[in-house]
Amino acid sequence: MGSEAGSRSSLTKPFDPEEFRKHAHRMVDFIADYHRDIENFPVQSQVEPGYLQKLLPENAPDEPESLDDILADVQSKIVPGVTHWQSPNFYGYYPSNGSTAGFLGEMLSGGFNIIGFSWITSPAATELEIIVMDWLGKLLKLPNEFLSSGKGGGVIQGTASEAVLVVMLAARKRAVEKLTKEQGISEFEALAKLVAYTSDQAHSCVNKASQIAGISIENLRLIPTDVSTNYAMSSKVLANTLANDVKAGLVPFFLCGVIGSTSSAAVDPLSELGDLAQEYGMWFHVDGAYAGNACICPEFRPYLNGVEKADSFDMNPHKWLLTNFDCSTLWVKNPSLLVDALSTNPVFLRNKQSDNNLVVDYKDWQIPLGRRFRSLKLWMVLRMYGSNGLRSYITNHCNLAKHFEELLRTDSRFEVVAPRVFSLVCFRLKSPANDADNSCSLSAKLVDALNSDGNILITNTVLGGRYTIRFTVGASRTELRHVDAAWKVIQQLASKLLKECSS
Amino acid sequence: MGSEAGSRSSLTKPFDPEEFRKHAHRMVDFIADYHRDIENFPVQSQVEPGYLQKLLPENAPDEPESLDDILADVQSKIVPGVTHWQSPNFYGYYPSNGSTAGFLGEMLSGGFNIIGFSWITSPAATELEIIVMDWLGKLLKLPNEFLSSGKGGGVIQGTASEAVLVVMLAARKRAVEKLTKEQGISEFEALAKLVAYTSDQAHSCVNKASQIAGISIENLRLIPTDVSTNYAMSSKVLANTLANDVKAGLVPFFLCGVIGSTSSAAVDPLSELGDLAQEYGMWFHVDGAYAGNACICPEFRPYLNGVEKADSFDMNPHKWLLTNFDCSTLWVKNPSLLVDALSTNPVFLRNKQSDNNLVVDYKDWQIPLGRRFRSLKLWMVLRMYGSNGLRSYITNHCNLAKHFEELLRTDSRFEVVAPRVFSLVCFRLKSPANDADNSCSLSAKLVDALNSDGNILITNTVLGGRYTIRFTVGASRTELRHVDAAWKVIQQLASKLLKECSS
Repeated sequence: MGSEAGSRSSLTKPFDPEEFRKHAHRMVDFIADYHRDIENFPVQSQVEPGYLQKLLPENAPDEPESLDDILADVQSKIVPGVTHWQSPNFYGYYPSNGSTAGFLGEMLSGGFNIIGFSWITSPAATELEIIVMDWLGKLLKLPNEFLSSGKGGGVIQGTASEAVLVVMLAARKRAVEKLTKEQGISEFEALAKLVAYTSDQAHSCVNKASQIAGISIENLRLIPTDVSTNYAMSSKVLANTLANDVKAGLVPFFLCGVIGSTSSAAVDPLSELGDLAQEYGMWFHVDGAYAGNACICPEFRPYLNGVEKADSFDMNPHKWLLTNFDCSTLWVKNPSLLVDALSTNPVFLRNKQSDNNLVVDYKDWQIPLGRRFRSLKLWMVLRMYGSNGLRSYITNHCNLAKHFEELLRTDSRFEVVAPRVFSLVCFRLKSPANDADNSCSLSAKLVDALNSDGNILITNTVLGGRYTIRFTVGASRTELRHVDAAWKVIQQLASKLLKECSS
Repeated sequence: MGSEAGSRSSLTKPFDPEEFRKHAHRMVDFIADYHRDIENFPVQSQVEPGYLQKLLPENAPDEPESLDDILADVQSKIVPGVTHWQSPNFYGYYPSNGSTAGFLGEMLSGGFNIIGFSWITSPAATELEIIVMDWLGKLLKLPNEFLSSGKGGGVIQGTASEAVLVVMLAARKRAVEKLTKEQGISEFEALAKLVAYTSDQAHSCVNKASQIAGISIENLRLIPTDVSTNYAMSSKVLANTLANDVKAGLVPFFLCGVIGSTSSAAVDPLSELGDLAQEYGMWFHVDGAYAGNACICPEFRPYLNGVEKADSFDMNPHKWLLTNFDCSTLWVKNPSLLVDALSTNPVFLRNKQSDNNLVVDYKDWQIPLGRRFRSLKLWMVLRMYGSNGLRSYITNHCNLAKHFEELLRTDSRFEVVAPRVFSLVCFRLKSPANDADNSCSLSAKLVDALNSDGNILITNTVLGGRYTIRFTVGASRTELRHVDAAWKVIQQLASKLLKECSS
């Protein structure tokens, strides 16, 4: 029997090393073949809601099934329902860029399968995280106050949503304690006064964090932006809002600035925001989920100026630094405020090292208790590509986006609707002269047509009240030829739509 | 050059299929060898705090390094800092039981590397999750109201901490809306009245969820337990507490019952708790993080009776159902209450299928936005072991624990301090007659000695005010011979300690 036939045999033990070896090699080949063939699939899955229920049994099997049978089902039933985020033709949202190194790091983490909530549960997991967060912080030229050598520290969260939530909870705790002490009011009266600030371009996770933290929806200020600042927050508008709120007896406690907004990669004026945060005693968080990554390149680092005035900064290497999802890197200047807000010390987790404050226990820096050994993948990415390799990777994407923007400008049927700073291009298909009321909603139709066609995937947003197409270069394997091919299919489908619209 | 020498070459592209194939095969062998050799390492890592900083450079490298160099570092610098949760000699906490199938599912998820926040981002991810949560729900004989066919539904969370948080947030939202409407008070006045209930044996995540949800620490009732109920919550004590709170103008809104408490695997009287929850209009959540898994076996299912009165139920297949961490399975009867509390609908995520309510978007059932394709690993575990295989797996652990308990009872120096129900045994090393004040704290010394010795790992808790040793059989590869060897080393070290103590 060959090795393939061999894997028809079912598993006899839960984690036998030799059965593991054989089956895992088989899975490596399956995944490698998937990546080899990935451009054969429509990027956006074309299935209809409910498709899978028709294909799978109603109950789990009683007896073991073979890996070959399962992989056959993956190929015929699962893959058609997958939207191929790793395709070089994926230009939607902000990408999830995987890599060989990131994948290997995840494998190794899965191989150890430890739960690193406290230092004692696997010292290497905590200590490697401290070290790689310092490494990455240095690549970003974060001030020393954010690093472990400067009383700050980094922690890997799952997502930017969790990062903004934990810092908001730390800010809430600090603000409530101050108010109850100074004004002799209850914690709930204090909570009612707290106001959080961000721009209307900030990610919805700020809104979600506020909901969870119990901040009234009326006390979340989404500072309006417009084209005059390229959709960045105006510190003048923010200053006015703050002054009015304080006059009304409210208490500003949290400000989230953005570098690289989700809709158009807008960059808030961090330094001015930092000054206002300091003036009003607010926690200042900087969300750089996507564009923060670019700041490892000297040409982009200036966009991060002002971060030295922040209390916390977060970005997602899983978006644009080749680290497989999930990996969101959060640095804080004062980790003890996180611990104050999030620690629990049940008897069943007590140990000498924690009791004596000799170690970091990351359980107190996050929402969940358990945590994977995620630092391994970030460590492997940093080592296997090197910081120069990672810089080239980012720069190359930005150059490809610039190239795409130039192509757009050669075709007068399109308009670029926000300045391109990083690797995101926002554009529209202009309505023809005889369609002044935009009844054809051409851009929306173009997005639908492109995603149904399957050659590329793009997504949409609204900017300045108008439907906008987003084209992000950021998949790991996107090359010049892919961008050129994407432009060709965009032009073709646009021509078809314009013809239908004018007929 | 052989394949090993070949992997000295560094990566040239971020995700080249053939480079991936070569390097991933190398990693499979590394991990298989680790598992083959796992019993050679001390189970509990023996490093000192700060060990790793001395071994790694201060900065990320500029240029790429080879996989072989990295794996050499893993072996010499990381592995000594790993506490080997996958060792068959791991009896601490509740285990994190990995398996070949769970690992393969994680690999495949990492291979696709999709972000499944909305149905449209990979329909298979959402639909497979719905299906396997129904499969597992049926194995547990959950009432139909928890399944997708009965208007309920399941969702995979990362951890039980997240599960209890999201249901508490749903309960908070419902309770606050009711109070503001009925009593004409503000949302903060309503929040101040809310009281949550659980036992003093519940996991610390209930405490943490309350903190996050803004429930005052004075309004979290940890109902005291004692040996008279084997550390289960007394519904009588709960009923008295509820009556007093209501008399004081407070509003009970959330009750968490436990099947398999962390300290001693105590089981709360779910049915009686459910009746009280209904009487007071509370959300009733059942946390079965560890022992819930056992309820796929007919002999253990009676412990789950009463779950039909619950609003939500959660357990962790990553603890005891061979699914690699993280995988916490939460079922709710009314998912729309989760969505009410957690949904955001930013313009940049809008799509036809979501707008038309044709699909489930799991982003609104959880804290983070992004989510991995975790259903793959649960699906593969259910298929590759089959439900009969999984039942045998659980039963075998419980039999091994029973065997260990019997060994303990043969040695009068030890006492079993709580009845064993599942695979956890709680015991103490009795103090000798001349040490009535327990000055030797023999049990604590025994745990320290065992973990320093390295042959096995065990952990501790406090029960009824007394230090207690916990011995959980639950690692995937633990066999009878391991338990017998563990008992031997426990006896040996106990003899040594008793000798020292009496001398």
